[in-house]
Amino acid sequence: MAARLLDGTLVAAAIRDECRPRIAAFAAAAGRPPGLGIVLAGHDPASEIYVRNKVKKAAEVGLYAELIRIGADRPVQDVLEVVARLNSRADIDGVLVQSPLPAGMGEDAEMRVIDAIDPAKDVDGFTTVNVGRLVQNRGGLSACTPTGVIEILERAGVPIKGAHAVVIGRSDIVGKPMALMLLHRHATVTICHSKTVDLPGVARTADILVAAIGRPGFVTPDFVRPGAVVVDVGTTQVTDAALVEQLFDAQSPRRAAFARNGSLVVGDVHPSVAQVAGAMTPVPGGVGPLTIALLLANTIRAAETRLAR
Amino acid sequence: MAARLLDGTLVAAAIRDECRPRIAAFAAAAGRPPGLGIVLAGHDPASEIYVRNKVKKAAEVGLYAELIRIGADRPVQDVLEVVARLNSRADIDGVLVQSPLPAGMGEDAEMRVIDAIDPAKDVDGFTTVNVGRLVQNRGGLSACTPTGVIEILERAGVPIKGAHAVVIGRSDIVGKPMALMLLHRHATVTICHSKTVDLPGVARTADILVAAIGRPGFVTPDFVRPGAVVVDVGTTQVTDAALVEQLFDAQSPRRAAFARNGSLVVGDVHPSVAQVAGAMTPVPGGVGPLTIALLLANTIRAAETRLAR
Repeated sequence: MAARLLDGTLVAAAIRDECRPRIAAFAAAAGRPPGLGIVLAGHDPASEIYVRNKVKKAAEVGLYAELIRIGADRPVQDVLEVVARLNSRADIDGVLVQSPLPAGMGEDAEMRVIDAIDPAKDVDGFTTVNVGRLVQNRGGLSACTPTGVIEILERAGVPIKGAHAVVIGRSDIVGKPMALMLLHRHATVTICHSKTVDLPGVARTADILVAAIGRPGFVTPDFVRPGAVVVDVGTTQVTDAALVEQLFDAQSPRRAAFARNGSLVVGDVHPSVAQVAGAMTPVPGGVGPLTIALLLANTIRAAETRLAR
Repeated sequence: MAARLLDGTLVAAAIRDECRPRIAAFAAAAGRPPGLGIVLAGHDPASEIYVRNKVKKAAEVGLYAELIRIGADRPVQDVLEVVARLNSRADIDGVLVQSPLPAGMGEDAEMRVIDAIDPAKDVDGFTTVNVGRLVQNRGGLSACTPTGVIEILERAGVPIKGAHAVVIGRSDIVGKPMALMLLHRHATVTICHSKTVDLPGVARTADILVAAIGRPGFVTPDFVRPGAVVVDVGTTQVTDAALVEQLFDAQSPRRAAFARNGSLVVGDVHPSVAQVAGAMTPVPGGVGPLTIALLLANTIRAAETRLAR
């Protein structure tokens, strides 16, 4: 039996539809649409795609989105100056700096830039203050990807309260906030990572399994209790034909897509998990579209909160 | 076979001994000892004891400790004003407001007061900024009780990396920071609570079991895998003779102590767990003394950081 597919594209569209009347109401009250400033430093190909999608989706729902580009060879100070300008602009409600920053900006550049963002405009939910507010369960702007996972679970009617949720991965942007969000919704939560002993065994105790490690096809059927809900946060660009053949059987349309394009976006969950899981999110079309939809929702929320002040 | 006893009194004494030369070095550089301001609103009997111990232990190691009392019938604004004054005083490095605040101050009084404390002086580690820094694993001032648990585990040579740690309780001051601290030391971490299904079964998967729920004797031998390390954070003042009889057998000196005093401080872990666990912290004499020792260490750290600025 194949797992029920949790369609992130549909949920993302529903969230965007909910955004429109809020944008209209905000624009009527404020005399302008909510504004999102996006900073892109360098020319990372994946970042170019992400940023293009963010600008496009923002415009589609009626947000004002402004893209500021910074050369790959510029110092981190240039990014900090742009962030400071966006922080002080009245028409900008959300500030986002696309990750990764160019390596030349230094090892601590990401953290320095996050620290520079006004928490009231931190639509990625990465600033220390918003992370602290998440732990304290006080609302505020929270990271888009784990918030998107909660949306897809809740809208699919997956019970979280009392469930055992296992999160594989402990990053600041997915794993840790994901664990906290599930905990606050009364799941029993386990966080696993590279040092976990018997990871498949621990994962098999999950009613809800969230994979967020960026290792294509890592979660195989032996990680999954029959009937469990599996959420795949991984998105890795794969160019290795042998890996694609190991992941997808000869009849799969994804093999054909790989043959056409020479690359494929692959999740952390092996496709064969569909034979064991009760429900799962696909890649692409699962968590990915939700991340951008939640970015739009966060921008509107930031705008509404600033207006209400 | 009885569990090895993890003596918190000894570890607390060792931490205090490590404080002394740092205090001397700070005093030589700053021309004054590190200063701790403690605010006590009302006359809660347990708070009176805690605060008295904090002042006493601070003085013993050579800190300057100042106790500011506020009447139980005063509004929360009085507390906020005292906190603001302590924030701005050059000779005060740490600010602590004893919890709970009088009920008359309002439901949100605790959070308002925490929000008012300068994060640089937040020696309890409760402010949003310090909580966020903990999640981001960036150092800073962290909550005393879970930090004390880490100290007792590390100094006893209990391996954390790769261990499965189960934390029962998800409070902002113990459960959540405890889980994060264990995670950052590479444990696989599960957080349980009142909505957890089969709590004994989940607890039995633990190599390290931390109980922090405030329910006397709740953790019974069926919660404990033979040989596991059990840390008891609970401290409940018990006055119910039937409960004491259920917890301690007739020969126990704790029964005699109860007969003398009419009350007994009891942990979350049932004494019979000692027959199953490999090691455990007693109550009293376990985590309790460490909480105050870590408060002193945090005050010194805050003082050193302010001096280095």
